[in-house]
Amino acid sequence: MSEAPDDDARESARLEAFSDGVFAIAITLLVLELKVPPFDAALGPALLERWPSYVAFVLSFAMIGIMWLNHHRLFAYIRRVDHMLVVINGLLLLGVTFLPFPTAVVAEHFGHAGERGATLFYAATLVFIALGFNALLLYPMGGGRAKTLLEVPPDHPAWRAIARQYRPGVPLYLALFLLALVWPRVSQIGLILFALFFALPPRKASVMR
Amino acid sequence: MSEAPDDDARESARLEAFSDGVFAIAITLLVLELKVPPFDAALGPALLERWPSYVAFVLSFAMIGIMWLNHHRLFAYIRRVDHMLVVINGLLLLGVTFLPFPTAVVAEHFGHAGERGATLFYAATLVFIALGFNALLLYPMGGGRAKTLLEVPPDHPAWRAIARQYRPGVPLYLALFLLALVWPRVSQIGLILFALFFALPPRKASVMR
Amino acid sequence: MSEAPDDDARESARLEAFSDGVFAIAITLLVLELKVPPFDAALGPALLERWPSYVAFVLSFAMIGIMWLNHHRLFAYIRRVDHMLVVINGLLLLGVTFLPFPTAVVAEHFGHAGERGATLFYAATLVFIALGFNALLLYPMGGGRAKTLLEVPPDHPAWRAIARQYRPGVPLYLALFLLALVWPRVSQIGLILFALFFALPPRKASVMR
Amino acid sequence: MSEAPDDDARESARLEAFSDGVFAIAITLLVLELKVPPFDAALGPALLERWPSYVAFVLSFAMIGIMWLNHHRLFAYIRRVDHMLVVINGLLLLGVTFLPFPTAVVAEHFGHAGERGATLFYAATLVFIALGFNALLLYPMGGGRAKTLLEVPPDHPAWRAIARQYRPGVPLYLALFLLALVWPRVSQIGLILFALFFALPPRKASVMR
Repeated sequence: MSEAPDDDARESARLEAFSDGVFAIAITLLVLELKVPPFDAALGPALLERWPSYVAFVLSFAMIGIMWLNHHRLFAYIRRVDHMLVVINGLLLLGVTFLPFPTAVVAEHFGHAGERGATLFYAATLVFIALGFNALLLYPMGGGRAKTLLEVPPDHPAWRAIARQYRPGVPLYLALFLLALVWPRVSQIGLILFALFFALPPRKASVMR
Repeated sequence: MSEAPDDDARESARLEAFSDGVFAIAITLLVLELKVPPFDAALGPALLERWPSYVAFVLSFAMIGIMWLNHHRLFAYIRRVDHMLVVINGLLLLGVTFLPFPTAVVAEHFGHAGERGATLFYAATLVFIALGFNALLLYPMGGGRAKTLLEVPPDHPAWRAIARQYRPGVPLYLALFLLALVWPRVSQIGLILFALFFALPPRKASVMR
Repeated sequence: MSEAPDDDARESARLEAFSDGVFAIAITLLVLELKVPPFDAALGPALLERWPSYVAFVLSFAMIGIMWLNHHRLFAYIRRVDHMLVVINGLLLLGVTFLPFPTAVVAEHFGHAGERGATLFYAATLVFIALGFNALLLYPMGGGRAKTLLEVPPDHPAWRAIARQYRPGVPLYLALFLLALVWPRVSQIGLILFALFFALPPRKASVMR
Repeated sequence: MSEAPDDDARESARLEAFSDGVFAIAITLLVLELKVPPFDAALGPALLERWPSYVAFVLSFAMIGIMWLNHHRLFAYIRRVDHMLVVINGLLLLGVTFLPFPTAVVAEHFGHAGERGATLFYAATLVFIALGFNALLLYPMGGGRAKTLLEVPPDHPAWRAIARQYRPGVPLYLALFLLALVWPRVSQIGLILFALFFALPPRKASVMR
């Protein structure tokens, strides 16, 4: 039974379902980092003062949402998973589940001495995740594995469209990381613009696949 | 393979499953906002004193449950999702995952100076979510997208029944928001009555779809 | 399409999957109530001193596990869900997601003045949940709804076996609640014995259904 | 309907899906144990000083990931579950959901007087989980249950490969527990090496099953 193609599909679907669960939990846990102002504080000013927390919350929510979508698009073309792909996917999920932590660090240190360091920490986490996504894309294409692991040949337009979409990830986040060394605020704005840009409709109608 | 109808169904089902996960997690995380009285406090009075926390917990539980049901009913008629629908759904989930925070703010500030502000904050979150639901309803109906995105034409009785049900959401929560400006308590009672009203059996027998 | 039997099955499966998610999250959140002794405390004594926390953790874990199993057994025979069944199921899940809170209250107040009150609070939550399970069992049997909502007639041996199993729930937890008024410790031991008793193999081989 | 083979498969799949949910939540909750340095601390040193937390986070992430994979591999060959198997699986999940707690204890007490005790506590939890995995493997093989519970006979190469893989678990973690009595650091390095070793590709190509 081990070699039946529907078993392979089941394995790949199982790993994707597990990953989906991790994405859904990570995106929902972000809210736990928001601190409730104590009852004896003036609520309005206390909430307004915490705006960096809310921006960080929305940004990380958007980031994890975008990651889920990218993960999902890729797995639509992965037919079979081997040990290394499970490990790569695990490293990627490690970055995703970690993201609420640098998010909270940025929210806490925004406007204080640690803002630059916090932004670097956040951007470094995104670089790590982008590397994970690239490994998830490149590994099944290489070493003659495409025939076994992919639904389509690696020069199929759909797969190449995904590859094109993934390409700017690492350089972009690396640039934002380097930018944060000099101007943390510009780097943060870059991150927000990237998330907003993603919300724009793409040139082609269907993006879910 | 991209154009096969069962693939479309798979995409829509996947987005719904992801959303279901987020609803289930958000509804279960609410309990984490309840604070345990320390062992050296008189337990009975300490628990009774926190009744606003419990009411807020039950109210938000009911709200997220109702939202899950409404989301589910709508998705039963969505055959295909495009990029914009994914973004709209993401904004809706953003509001849902955020709800535990204003819930905790209301519970903390009830009976204190911040009660009005907390109620406004809670109601504003519900207005945001109601806008999300309306966008989720209206977007697939407009611009000639119904044929592609919906299982049924937008004048189908089932779809119109959903539309009728969604219509009062935004004005209702907006009214409760405005009411909170003057009488926060009346606004809170309005929210509770709405949740109780929902628990009544509808005129037609089957409501799950 | 609304009346097709496979749609009904889909609705029921969807509600069960959502409930399963809530059970899985509630059972996993219990660990968050365990407090880590600070690094400057003597670790061994600090951990040993917290044994009531661990017992409470294991007990509530077992309770939610048993509830999941009971919920699952019942839903195997529910073909269709109507509005009231969704509401009843929601009330049941409300109790389940709430359970980590009385668990933490018992763990905190064990051996202190609040122990009796904490035990009453815990037992009262279990009474509420048991009432929810009974409503979930009785509602689809009554008022001529069995034909629509159930897979089998209510006098089917499988359904009657479930009914037999549910019957002792409310009286048992009510008895443990009353017992806690006089001897909280005896009530706690009763709860633990009940959970251990459940772990014994039943007379019939298959219990998962 | 109770005896139909596809029902059995459904039962087993349901228990696996519930377990998958618990694994996914436990792996994602680990991040909540990471503490954000306050804004008035020097961020860089404060983060660097907490490196044991990050190592503990990554280690427990890897451990739960490996456990999920092992659980999944085993369940691929379990056709039917009986009461005792549900109880054994529950004990295993109890250990998995508990793991974030000893992880936090190790992170807090590393480099302090409690380090030895914390390492023992962590290793003891892994011994408990390894015992759970062995029970999950051995129970369906014994007492003539294999025909009912397993997809394959217990001498099938696939099942024997799983058994071979599980065998070192208990002695390994027991050895690391005993090692922690004398040299906690060596024990910790052993745990990390084990996780790294697992990331290496196995001799055979496909490991997901």
